[in-house]
Amino acid sequence: MILAWRDGWAWDTSGVTDDGLRYFDDYRPGTTYECGSVEISEAEIISFAEQFDPQPFHVDPAAAAHGPFGGLIASGWHTTALVMRKLVENYLSVEASLGSPGIDELRWPHPVRPGDTLRVRATVVEARRSESKPDRGIMKTALEAVNQDGRTVMRATATNFLRVGPDPDD
Amino acid sequence: MILAWRDGWAWDTSGVTDDGLRYFDDYRPGTTYECGSVEISEAEIISFAEQFDPQPFHVDPAAAAHGPFGGLIASGWHTTALVMRKLVENYLSVEASLGSPGIDELRWPHPVRPGDTLRVRATVVEARRSESKPDRGIMKTALEAVNQDGRTVMRATATNFLRVGPDPDD
Repeated sequence: MILAWRDGWAWDTSGVTDDGLRYFDDYRPGTTYECGSVEISEAEIISFAEQFDPQPFHVDPAAAAHGPFGGLIASGWHTTALVMRKLVENYLSVEASLGSPGIDELRWPHPVRPGDTLRVRATVVEARRSESKPDRGIMKTALEAVNQDGRTVMRATATNFLRVGPDPDD
Repeated sequence: MILAWRDGWAWDTSGVTDDGLRYFDDYRPGTTYECGSVEISEAEIISFAEQFDPQPFHVDPAAAAHGPFGGLIASGWHTTALVMRKLVENYLSVEASLGSPGIDELRWPHPVRPGDTLRVRATVVEARRSESKPDRGIMKTALEAVNQDGRTVMRATATNFLRVGPDPDD
């Protein structure tokens, strides 16, 4: 887990998250991890969307008021990026994480609006050792972000490669 | 299509992209649209990842050199965000776009590295009128981003809601 966000980057040399996650074998199917929450402001919504998704309902509050969502909403890609931040902080061990080949069934069932607070939750749904690369396992995680009213605003199934621990005989 | 990116936002009142896409009926299954290209720098990779995906192989060139990818790579969420920008500029008509319920089979088959130039391509794979909401159609698009060496670095199937044109009897 990362210790310091200010003044550069300090990596926790223990490599263990607050939930005791360090290596592939620590991620147990069926276990759900609460990954904290994040608030999203109108300024952040507009700033992200001006860079990456400049549709009127993401960047222009006046146009958005008359648009399909009756107001400004966050780009779905902004929501996924905020969820990723919480996973890096609270779920993906810096020692184990070897990247992701992809994501399935990414959904945005309810809009994210300025001032929303999103809680992020990750459930291990599958974990198996790689047959071709013995240094790693392949994990599938059900992700969910829920707003302050209990509405699910994002869900997805993520695949991650995770390093197995050091060989105990070493 | 958006006319001006500098000094605020100017919407093209014609609502027609360079490829003549304006309303749902203009998107024909089987048609592929080239959506331009985008270069990605090391500074951009680090800046995005510091905000949203601060894993060592995305934010720390020295650590990344000894990491699983042998160098710094872009967050997959950065790649998808850059692809979205090209779609908004070249594919999703500002008059038609009514948002997206989600994405399927998002894959990052090859890493994106500093200095890469990604070409973005969108192919309409399915387009049908909504049964519950007669003002719109539901379109599925196969997305692909290819680097300067012809390697696919991202692909996905996106679903979009698109406004049908005004009733000709109006």
